[in-house]
Amino acid sequence: MTSMRAAVLRDVHDVTIEERPIPTPGPDEVLVRVGSVGICGSDVHYYESGRIGPYVVDKPLVLGHEAGGEVVEVGERVLGLRAGQRVSLEPGVPCRSCQQCRAGRYNLCPGVQFFGTPPFDGALCEYVSMPADFVYPVPDALSDDAAGLLEPLSVAVWACRLGSVSAGSRVLVTGAGPIGLIAAQTAFAFGAADVVVTDVNPQRLAAAEQLGARTLDVSTTAVEDSGFVPDVLLECSGNARATSAAVRTVAPRGRVILIGMGSDEVSLSLPYLQNHELTVQGVFRYANTWPTAIALAASGAVQLDQLVSRHFGLDAVEEALTVHRQDPSALKVVVRPGE
Amino acid sequence: MTSMRAAVLRDVHDVTIEERPIPTPGPDEVLVRVGSVGICGSDVHYYESGRIGPYVVDKPLVLGHEAGGEVVEVGERVLGLRAGQRVSLEPGVPCRSCQQCRAGRYNLCPGVQFFGTPPFDGALCEYVSMPADFVYPVPDALSDDAAGLLEPLSVAVWACRLGSVSAGSRVLVTGAGPIGLIAAQTAFAFGAADVVVTDVNPQRLAAAEQLGARTLDVSTTAVEDSGFVPDVLLECSGNARATSAAVRTVAPRGRVILIGMGSDEVSLSLPYLQNHELTVQGVFRYANTWPTAIALAASGAVQLDQLVSRHFGLDAVEEALTVHRQDPSALKVVVRPGE
Amino acid sequence: MTSMRAAVLRDVHDVTIEERPIPTPGPDEVLVRVGSVGICGSDVHYYESGRIGPYVVDKPLVLGHEAGGEVVEVGERVLGLRAGQRVSLEPGVPCRSCQQCRAGRYNLCPGVQFFGTPPFDGALCEYVSMPADFVYPVPDALSDDAAGLLEPLSVAVWACRLGSVSAGSRVLVTGAGPIGLIAAQTAFAFGAADVVVTDVNPQRLAAAEQLGARTLDVSTTAVEDSGFVPDVLLECSGNARATSAAVRTVAPRGRVILIGMGSDEVSLSLPYLQNHELTVQGVFRYANTWPTAIALAASGAVQLDQLVSRHFGLDAVEEALTVHRQDPSALKVVVRPGE
Amino acid sequence: MTSMRAAVLRDVHDVTIEERPIPTPGPDEVLVRVGSVGICGSDVHYYESGRIGPYVVDKPLVLGHEAGGEVVEVGERVLGLRAGQRVSLEPGVPCRSCQQCRAGRYNLCPGVQFFGTPPFDGALCEYVSMPADFVYPVPDALSDDAAGLLEPLSVAVWACRLGSVSAGSRVLVTGAGPIGLIAAQTAFAFGAADVVVTDVNPQRLAAAEQLGARTLDVSTTAVEDSGFVPDVLLECSGNARATSAAVRTVAPRGRVILIGMGSDEVSLSLPYLQNHELTVQGVFRYANTWPTAIALAASGAVQLDQLVSRHFGLDAVEEALTVHRQDPSALKVVVRPGE
Repeated sequence: MTSMRAAVLRDVHDVTIEERPIPTPGPDEVLVRVGSVGICGSDVHYYESGRIGPYVVDKPLVLGHEAGGEVVEVGERVLGLRAGQRVSLEPGVPCRSCQQCRAGRYNLCPGVQFFGTPPFDGALCEYVSMPADFVYPVPDALSDDAAGLLEPLSVAVWACRLGSVSAGSRVLVTGAGPIGLIAAQTAFAFGAADVVVTDVNPQRLAAAEQLGARTLDVSTTAVEDSGFVPDVLLECSGNARATSAAVRTVAPRGRVILIGMGSDEVSLSLPYLQNHELTVQGVFRYANTWPTAIALAASGAVQLDQLVSRHFGLDAVEEALTVHRQDPSALKVVVRPGE
Repeated sequence: MTSMRAAVLRDVHDVTIEERPIPTPGPDEVLVRVGSVGICGSDVHYYESGRIGPYVVDKPLVLGHEAGGEVVEVGERVLGLRAGQRVSLEPGVPCRSCQQCRAGRYNLCPGVQFFGTPPFDGALCEYVSMPADFVYPVPDALSDDAAGLLEPLSVAVWACRLGSVSAGSRVLVTGAGPIGLIAAQTAFAFGAADVVVTDVNPQRLAAAEQLGARTLDVSTTAVEDSGFVPDVLLECSGNARATSAAVRTVAPRGRVILIGMGSDEVSLSLPYLQNHELTVQGVFRYANTWPTAIALAASGAVQLDQLVSRHFGLDAVEEALTVHRQDPSALKVVVRPGE
Repeated sequence: MTSMRAAVLRDVHDVTIEERPIPTPGPDEVLVRVGSVGICGSDVHYYESGRIGPYVVDKPLVLGHEAGGEVVEVGERVLGLRAGQRVSLEPGVPCRSCQQCRAGRYNLCPGVQFFGTPPFDGALCEYVSMPADFVYPVPDALSDDAAGLLEPLSVAVWACRLGSVSAGSRVLVTGAGPIGLIAAQTAFAFGAADVVVTDVNPQRLAAAEQLGARTLDVSTTAVEDSGFVPDVLLECSGNARATSAAVRTVAPRGRVILIGMGSDEVSLSLPYLQNHELTVQGVFRYANTWPTAIALAASGAVQLDQLVSRHFGLDAVEEALTVHRQDPSALKVVVRPGE
Repeated sequence: MTSMRAAVLRDVHDVTIEERPIPTPGPDEVLVRVGSVGICGSDVHYYESGRIGPYVVDKPLVLGHEAGGEVVEVGERVLGLRAGQRVSLEPGVPCRSCQQCRAGRYNLCPGVQFFGTPPFDGALCEYVSMPADFVYPVPDALSDDAAGLLEPLSVAVWACRLGSVSAGSRVLVTGAGPIGLIAAQTAFAFGAADVVVTDVNPQRLAAAEQLGARTLDVSTTAVEDSGFVPDVLLECSGNARATSAAVRTVAPRGRVILIGMGSDEVSLSLPYLQNHELTVQGVFRYANTWPTAIALAASGAVQLDQLVSRHFGLDAVEEALTVHRQDPSALKVVVRPGE
């Protein structure tokens, strides 16, 4: 068997299944049979618009970057991985030699090759080959779906690290979509004493509540009127107006972590920032997070499987990419390329 | 009623109950009826030796600094506290104007007045008066004993902060006495993924296991042979040899937090410290920890009541101070001055 | 002699010299004869508008918070200061017991009493009384003017600390007014390898150049076209548009320190903040900076005297507060109450 | 020309000049003609003992790791370097994929290939080939010797970073050998307000004084009697007794940075560490320091050339390795392979 099926984005609103050669792993690489791929908002965005900011899909592209699976072959120099191991994939492989890489901020490497980001193919296919050091064995307690969802969990781990969430922190999470729900759980896992999640969708708020957070429906109560004074704001809505409002509730010396994407500009109150000496920090993906993400998911501190609303086969990728139109309270949608 | 009973250390091995006037709270102070006082190793040390390093008991002294109770009277300028509130006391009141105080390190204030440390009287009596900002209301979920034991919990919170214990950390705790058992729980509350506690006493190790930690009996297996490579060592034994050995297991860039007292010198492997770029940090009490300690105890993340082995009344303070001689596996001993 | 002269802001555009009693220092205070008071933009703002944000001058107010002078009397409990000592005053005395004070962030104390900020009188008078721990002896190398200008230098020290300016840093300073010129020098004193100062006023740019900085006239070259990629942006213009533009030049993981006041909102590019993981930090005054400021000024690393454009006596305070209208390139204006 | 001369350590006290093939640079490498190699204590130690700790010279080895020179050939994929450029070499090339490398701590990479450390040959030869990203162009202001001595300067930069030396810091440097003298200058470049250097050798102390430091002859005055209370101790002596004594002078919350090697154990006062909450940090080489080191040397903030006591040709390497026996106050000895 030398060929596999891949879901290829050929144009806006056009994903076609193609036969492609199964990649051959290099000496430091492993070949992974993809078991599960979570669909991310950015996948949907490429499907609908063909671009995200400067990244333009100008030739056929395989999407998908939240992937778990099983090692089927290892390169000759690979130690510590073997065929049969269940694994999670860290989807961005950096250049390893620029200033950012050498300083440990490989997420900021200008030469990073990131799954499903033009011009690099992603994981919505049957097999991918990856450098072994970006492939992490997972314990049996983690499902394939959870192995894939370690990617958004990594975003939350990174955000909590940059936001110095620690024991006793009070955390405000704006936006109860998948990343917000993961961020809320991750904040608790970092020791937060109180987590409030905002949204306008009652089902999503109910999901947040089930995970142990307090919730606030900002369609009826403004966040400033809630009386909650967070040490850390994990902004997961990407909504500029929601961001401006939420920032104005943060405690002196609090941290604002900007996770949600989608706005071009965010307008902040300069006197508020200054009088409270707030720190506002943008986050971009993650670095050095997988071991922690695995630990949090394996211990049950963060529940990933229950965020999965629906599963699709590879043939139904377009359906997976459009679920949110029919069902705005759907959380995570997962594609299983082998089914 | 203007007088109260106080347990006064008059000489080595001599504690006598005296009648003393109930203090009158100043305008910024509150008067607290003491409900519970945990006995600490330092209390025992003063009782047995009359001194700890430079601190010499050269006149009668009331011991005790782990205290919870109830507000009975508030000074005229006090806001936010009222008679009837159940509270925990932070036992060291700093000068508020030296370089250390102004930098937020008030634990290092050379002028701090600390309960039960010569020449300042402590809490083994019926009433104490304290500046209101060192008195913290506690929720009903916390017993008086737990309110008192927020003091050793604060030591652990401070240690975990200085050691940057965070989600996914692997933590080694040397010594399964009360502070070690609290430190292990606190490490979990800060997100630690794996906590190993060492000791030679099987009952204490069993207690650690019950709290969710893995354990290692170092009378049979050297810590270096355990294979555990911690990111953080919370040294709670105060034993110089155990410290030296444990340091040699810490991961590159790991942190060694020296909590346990009792040794004069600690000998460290210079090549090991250098080749692994370890950080070794001494800790002295705590600063700004009570709100976090309250949150950890109130949520059940840290169990304090189950560390209490025995209770005594004020009349039985000397018995409380000598329990450890009969029962080396006793954990926390608590005096209840009102009973 | 029991009375002194004070310059009192009675209404917008109305400063009158009044006779007032010389204050009597409390037991922990010292009485200082004011030698020099730098005029700050906020003094001018109160003079012209009667308010800054929520701070409203609704009764007569003495302005001035950049003060140096000489101790003339010390309270009974004061150690370490004596009459005749030349000193610099830290103008904000915090409550010493709130959460911010105890954490070492006394600049964020909600109860701080700050010179020349309603309702607290400032230093534009002959004598002031201050808690001794906010009064710092200065070496003879420092003039009275320099002693006063340790206050804006403290702002710059604080900003460089929060911005982690260190050896080798590349620093962009937007705005070549007094605070920008001090910030540029301070950045060099923290080890910055390259400092670029922007402005549109040629005299101010020339002043920056004389202090060793490179300069950029942003009326002819946009900062984004300069090719300079700073690690740290010290924003001293308070201009919202200049801020937005300058932020877009900062290096990955760079820090933006918002010093300049005056804008209500600042609009930031969310994708730029995220893709570069910038940190944006508001600063409010300073904490624990005087010893460093004294060291920098005393060693000559930061030149303060040469920033002084003109001197005035107390009678000419209104003239001092309006100099900038005639001479927009004037830098620091100083009032000498004793002359 | 395909062969070159190399100084090969064949046995203890036996360095022989051998003809070896000039290396061919790989696609990401550059070939450098070595202009200058500083001799380090570790080179001397290998020459005299054949080992340092676990590193044993069990086959012929070229020593030398403080190297500057000129690019003579570049691999096909190399951008940003070209033949003719004068450069400095960072002598340790890490694996780029282990946990330490990915976290930015590549100095702790267990697979690092470090010049002149068994089994990896160093720079005491005419040509070396290096990955281009470990080769840094230097400005003409820097001599070849200075380009080589950026290596020990990097050690000092790293130490000052880990020790948080900043504007106003008071720094104690124990040991006025080459690394101590570089550390003292580097501390000033990081903004230190006061630097005291200790030694027992009057010529070395004189050299320290010439560089602007205060000095203390610890053969006549114990460091504890000097009255100096440093925020940071940069320990450059490697002497266990000197270290113990110096630690006991450090200010509360001060940092002890262990640079000097040579002792097996260092004994520290546990009560002192705890009561002052000192941080003791081992350092091992450096990471991400070259750009800063270049800036400090190019600006003249750190003087490197004047530390060079003597020069030797490649034929005289053994003489260079034994200078210190005749002349204990000799500072840096440099070999120029091309002369």
